[in-house]
Amino acid sequence: MTEPVDEQAHDHAQDHAQHGYIGDKKAYLARLKRIEGQARGLQRMVEDEKYCIDILTQISAMTKALESVALGLLDDHLTHCVVDAAAAGGPEADAKIKEASAAIARLVRS
Amino acid sequence: MTEPVDEQAHDHAQDHAQHGYIGDKKAYLARLKRIEGQARGLQRMVEDEKYCIDILTQISAMTKALESVALGLLDDHLTHCVVDAAAAGGPEADAKIKEASAAIARLVRS
Amino acid sequence: MTEPVDEQAHDHAQDHAQHGYIGDKKAYLARLKRIEGQARGLQRMVEDEKYCIDILTQISAMTKALESVALGLLDDHLTHCVVDAAAAGGPEADAKIKEASAAIARLVRS
Amino acid sequence: MTEPVDEQAHDHAQDHAQHGYIGDKKAYLARLKRIEGQARGLQRMVEDEKYCIDILTQISAMTKALESVALGLLDDHLTHCVVDAAAAGGPEADAKIKEASAAIARLVRS
Repeated sequence: MTEPVDEQAHDHAQDHAQHGYIGDKKAYLARLKRIEGQARGLQRMVEDEKYCIDILTQISAMTKALESVALGLLDDHLTHCVVDAAAAGGPEADAKIKEASAAIARLVRS
Repeated sequence: MTEPVDEQAHDHAQDHAQHGYIGDKKAYLARLKRIEGQARGLQRMVEDEKYCIDILTQISAMTKALESVALGLLDDHLTHCVVDAAAAGGPEADAKIKEASAAIARLVRS
Repeated sequence: MTEPVDEQAHDHAQDHAQHGYIGDKKAYLARLKRIEGQARGLQRMVEDEKYCIDILTQISAMTKALESVALGLLDDHLTHCVVDAAAAGGPEADAKIKEASAAIARLVRS
Repeated sequence: MTEPVDEQAHDHAQDHAQHGYIGDKKAYLARLKRIEGQARGLQRMVEDEKYCIDILTQISAMTKALESVALGLLDDHLTHCVVDAAAAGGPEADAKIKEASAAIARLVRS
């Protein structure tokens, strides 16, 4: 099955053995599996022509769940990756901050 | 497989044979299937310990896709259900507006 | 003093003697005056170089206050203007719904 | 005139002579002054009973302007305050990250 997710980006990331969220990996996977289930549940609701407002309520819940995963990952990223880069200093630190700020802007605006 | 989605709500909706979105049902199902694929793609990214920022970018894209489905459903709901209730008049019309406003508030705040 | 707000739009609106929010006009004005005060307070915080995080907390509070005014106005608009147009029927009703949906999309995305 | 803004918080911040945004202080003040003008413009629109949808459009523009100020301040804060704390290390660095993450969560949810 083809998946619409673009996963090729940022080769430079591949050589990191550890990204900050590793400790909670199982917890993140469980949350994302639940979100996948919500997406499937929404399809059943549309298939069965459930009441629009009830579908919208489910979408709001799913959006909040996604947002919460994003905020967790961002906190992990700041705690590990950005702090490490800042401690090392130099242009890498600046680049990490710019990259994190851009990701935060996308979250705030989405 | 158990699904975490709560689908029992609003019995009164069941007896509507037609909810406004029926015309676009196939299109909505395709969009939700794609969103389900994005949720699965996120799990693979976490499993493979992809770079946090790339995962956040995917989450922003998925949030926007969900938001766009919600806005489409809401427009359909206003166009059909709310307009019909308003044309019929009476307390039902008021109740429909209150219900739509509450759903809009949840979307704006999620 | 010059104000950056664009107020010329929609001549067709001018001839409505009553827009739905009239009943709460004083309450809306009081809320907007408070929001204006928050904008002035933010300037003093920047002027005095207060701590960034405290300024961000104030901005979040002000954004929520604005959002809440918007949701109130939207509910008033749906209750009065949209319901009246729907009761009258015809292309005007459709146009009102499209216009309301576009405003909702702007709120959800802002 | 009484202002509703709470400005007393975080004594510990007072002893910082420099908060990161100082370089752009004039630019931030100009943007906030413009936002204050938008708040005043909204009051005139309500006073004059302008069309609801036009008022909502202005509120969306004002929300975006506020959001953009917040993202700028947050970037400045990460670039200066958080990077400095990270370079110094220790529990202070962790505390700064937690504080920044909480502020980001408030922005994303507001």
